Amino acid sequence: MEKEHNLVPEDKLWKRHLYRIIYRSDTRLGKLFDVALLALILISTSIIMMESIPKLDKRFHYTFIITEWIISLFFTAEYWSRIAVVKNKKQYIFSFFGIIDFLALVPFYLSFFFPVTKYFLIFRMLRMLRVFRVFNLMDFMNDGSVIIRALKNSSRKIYIFLLFLIIFSVIVGSLMFMVEGGRPGFETIPQSIYWAVVTVTTVGYGDVSPITPMGKFFAVILMLAGYSIIAVPTGIVTAEMRNKRQNLEKICDRCGNEDIDDDARYCKQCGKKLA
Amino acid sequence: MEKEHNLVPEDKLWKRHLYRIIYRSDTRLGKLFDVALLALILISTSIIMMESIPKLDKRFHYTFIITEWIISLFFTAEYWSRIAVVKNKKQYIFSFFGIIDFLALVPFYLSFFFPVTKYFLIFRMLRMLRVFRVFNLMDFMNDGSVIIRALKNSSRKIYIFLLFLIIFSVIVGSLMFMVEGGRPGFETIPQSIYWAVVTVTTVGYGDVSPITPMGKFFAVILMLAGYSIIAVPTGIVTAEMRNKRQNLEKICDRCGNEDIDDDARYCKQCGKKLA
Amino acid sequence: MEKEHNLVPEDKLWKRHLYRIIYRSDTRLGKLFDVALLALILISTSIIMMESIPKLDKRFHYTFIITEWIISLFFTAEYWSRIAVVKNKKQYIFSFFGIIDFLALVPFYLSFFFPVTKYFLIFRMLRMLRVFRVFNLMDFMNDGSVIIRALKNSSRKIYIFLLFLIIFSVIVGSLMFMVEGGRPGFETIPQSIYWAVVTVTTVGYGDVSPITPMGKFFAVILMLAGYSIIAVPTGIVTAEMRNKRQNLEKICDRCGNEDIDDDARYCKQCGKKLA
Amino acid sequence: MEKEHNLVPEDKLWKRHLYRIIYRSDTRLGKLFDVALLALILISTSIIMMESIPKLDKRFHYTFIITEWIISLFFTAEYWSRIAVVKNKKQYIFSFFGIIDFLALVPFYLSFFFPVTKYFLIFRMLRMLRVFRVFNLMDFMNDGSVIIRALKNSSRKIYIFLLFLIIFSVIVGSLMFMVEGGRPGFETIPQSIYWAVVTVTTVGYGDVSPITPMGKFFAVILMLAGYSIIAVPTGIVTAEMRNKRQNLEKICDRCGNEDIDDDARYCKQCGKKLA
Repeated sequence: MEKEHNLVPEDKLWKRHLYRIIYRSDTRLGKLFDVALLALILISTSIIMMESIPKLDKRFHYTFIITEWIISLFFTAEYWSRIAVVKNKKQYIFSFFGIIDFLALVPFYLSFFFPVTKYFLIFRMLRMLRVFRVFNLMDFMNDGSVIIRALKNSSRKIYIFLLFLIIFSVIVGSLMFMVEGGRPGFETIPQSIYWAVVTVTTVGYGDVSPITPMGKFFAVILMLAGYSIIAVPTGIVTAEMRNKRQNLEKICDRCGNEDIDDDARYCKQCGKKLA
Repeated sequence: MEKEHNLVPEDKLWKRHLYRIIYRSDTRLGKLFDVALLALILISTSIIMMESIPKLDKRFHYTFIITEWIISLFFTAEYWSRIAVVKNKKQYIFSFFGIIDFLALVPFYLSFFFPVTKYFLIFRMLRMLRVFRVFNLMDFMNDGSVIIRALKNSSRKIYIFLLFLIIFSVIVGSLMFMVEGGRPGFETIPQSIYWAVVTVTTVGYGDVSPITPMGKFFAVILMLAGYSIIAVPTGIVTAEMRNKRQNLEKICDRCGNEDIDDDARYCKQCGKKLA
Repeated sequence: MEKEHNLVPEDKLWKRHLYRIIYRSDTRLGKLFDVALLALILISTSIIMMESIPKLDKRFHYTFIITEWIISLFFTAEYWSRIAVVKNKKQYIFSFFGIIDFLALVPFYLSFFFPVTKYFLIFRMLRMLRVFRVFNLMDFMNDGSVIIRALKNSSRKIYIFLLFLIIFSVIVGSLMFMVEGGRPGFETIPQSIYWAVVTVTTVGYGDVSPITPMGKFFAVILMLAGYSIIAVPTGIVTAEMRNKRQNLEKICDRCGNEDIDDDARYCKQCGKKLA
Repeated sequence: MEKEHNLVPEDKLWKRHLYRIIYRSDTRLGKLFDVALLALILISTSIIMMESIPKLDKRFHYTFIITEWIISLFFTAEYWSRIAVVKNKKQYIFSFFGIIDFLALVPFYLSFFFPVTKYFLIFRMLRMLRVFRVFNLMDFMNDGSVIIRALKNSSRKIYIFLLFLIIFSVIVGSLMFMVEGGRPGFETIPQSIYWAVVTVTTVGYGDVSPITPMGKFFAVILMLAGYSIIAVPTGIVTAEMRNKRQNLEKICDRCGNEDIDDDARYCKQCGKKLA
């Protein structure tokens, strides 16, 4: 993912050195840097969580504040270094990890003006996705990209499914409002829709549940329907996942076609007999 | 879906014009009309929801009433226009969207006599399904029809499954009534059946839950059974979904291979060039 | 399913007549008989349910009792007739529906001695499974048997899975007892196991939920594990369902092999080229 | 699984005898021994559970203690015998069942020093997994290993999925803390994360549920997202499960067809007789 911008700068020696440390993990220093980064991310997110616990915050308030400052300053320095040493700066800045690195910094500086934004620092956790690169877990990255591709390929179907589910929940919620209307949890249509979604997704908090026999009957039908509906997204992703699994296997050496089924004996694109 | 009745009337010019605006979205005016329609549907459903919130209703009561009147009158005019300008009127009236367009109007006029029916106006949301046509999202429509076809093809199996599930829930509910009978939530058999459905579908509100050790033991067995049963509808839809992806395709006339992908130019089994 | 014992008795004319009425639904009287039977089953189960509602029972007590008597006597007569007119009596008595027909009667007579057994009459609902034969819904029966066969073929795997799930729940429950021990809902190990099953099956009533931070942390791990485990039964049934679907399709006309895959061009049993 | 270390010792006759009794179940004594072992495991785990129930513990305290002593001493003797009679002692000790046998003893002796560890005795249940060997249920063992292999092969994908799910829950929980912050159940970020996991896994206890309209809106989005996400692990395992069923098989040496069923005698693609 980051291979695209590892265009080593040729001008200065220290830049090349820094580049190797920051962007690669094949040297001892480079690996150390990455591991340190992971540790800092974990510490930083832990602090944000602990700050929200009054007891801990009271006791370690200044420790937390100071550590956060140090880590954030380090991340800022790191971000500028990343930009400084890379050749194609634009490409890094607008890459997936480039944007995350940026977003991991913004809330810290914003929180001086809007204290509440501090909690957005939790997005720093996304930086942890680099973990697979650090430990050279290529197999993991491949498997990860299989999942992402399967989700991407089925995203359109899932969007349609969600649109349908939303319309369905709105209608069911409104009907339930007519049935249970006014009773606790069904005071308004939006609240009834909330109940419908809680039910159809089988979450079922129980903070809102039907009270009248009629409402219960209605809920039973909804639950049975929801039980069948839940099969749809699973079916979509499974079919796609299976599909994807086949694509990664072979390549036709005449035309380069990569979409070759398990049982294919001839390339479906150019008709060449496969080895 | 609406292609079947786009028989442009040949008599009058204004009719042909109106037809293009209402039924198509390939002209600027036609697109504008469709977008306006979507906006009105969204506004209309939002108002119905907001009307159910006492606070908002008190404050904007007349705004809501008047807007609803305007939108409903517009929808009425639109419905008549749709019938007027189309050649094959019957086909439109009884088409999927024709019926929905009609149902989106009825509750408004009915609500003069039966106020409660007003909330049925929420069915207007179904008109939003036209959204894919408006934005020319053909891929979405195709994917949508794949889902619908897979559901249709597996509907028979799902009906059987639901019948079985209902019989199962009734029996389990009755047995639980014997075990927990009289305790809160298990006062009657129908209520125990309600509990059984809530449990087996893994919704689990918690408004009713077993109290006696015996009842809890029984519930544990039911939950474990339900956990295995949930796999059935998923299995049905998944098998069908995968099936669908292949069934739509062609046959190689040399070797009879039926498993031919959409983009195949050669048979993967015998290497013959496909027509 | 009942074809095996439709050996028409040859001795008496009335027996042959009765046989056609009771066992078949291809004559008008036969169909009427079956529909009447279905109606009686529905009425009978409805009465059992309504009897459990104090309000209704108070008002219609004698109506319920008398109707139950009439229906049960009719079912008794029907059961004896079924035995009388069939040639291979043993086969009917020990067939699936023969046993259900018997079980649908027993609780009525038992309830004179043990009143509580009355509620077992709800098992009469199982007789409704004949519905598909009555309405000649052969496609439904085929689909139903596909589901049953898929479940049967995967039952061994599901048993293993359930054994594993039980051991898993017992261990998790015991660990949770150590963590939350004594707190409401975790007073004893069996109760903690109850909680573990409620959680891992994603039912989540909420009647018991972790209270201490440590317990919540533990629950989070269990939930994430359960989320992955839920995929197992689905995977089992889906794989089996797909497998089964293929088996029903073609037959080799030389060796009678029915297990022919979609893409097979030769019979894998005898090597004959398939049509 | 235990076949690897059934190297019968050749020195002493009693050792050979004991070996057959303990490690095998093909003699009457050997089978008896295994069944007795299973019974003792069940009794032992039942006692641990019953001890946790104050009522029962009060009444049968000494019965429980003494039975536990006897069983634990027997298990200790059995463990030493297992080591004594096997040739390759190391292999047994570090085998799957060797470790479990050891772990089933440790808590008993540890509980003299740390009473709380007594409940770890519940791990004895894992010894029950030997049940399939005892009753010679080879088919079950095969099916079990299919499940385990499918899980093993998809474990990497599931780890990635879980890592993603954890990051997702942490972020969602933190956002929810900002929305509902301070309200019961959302007092701290870790608690909000607990809520996020409870929701996204569709467990939905209801001990914590959104209160403000904003929080409910947010929860609805999370639930709909979770509904789509749940499809991922299922898709992973299903694809793997199906995969496994085919990968174990042979190849046709004429046409290279790899999709050959277990019972095939001819290649279904080219009709060649298989070796």
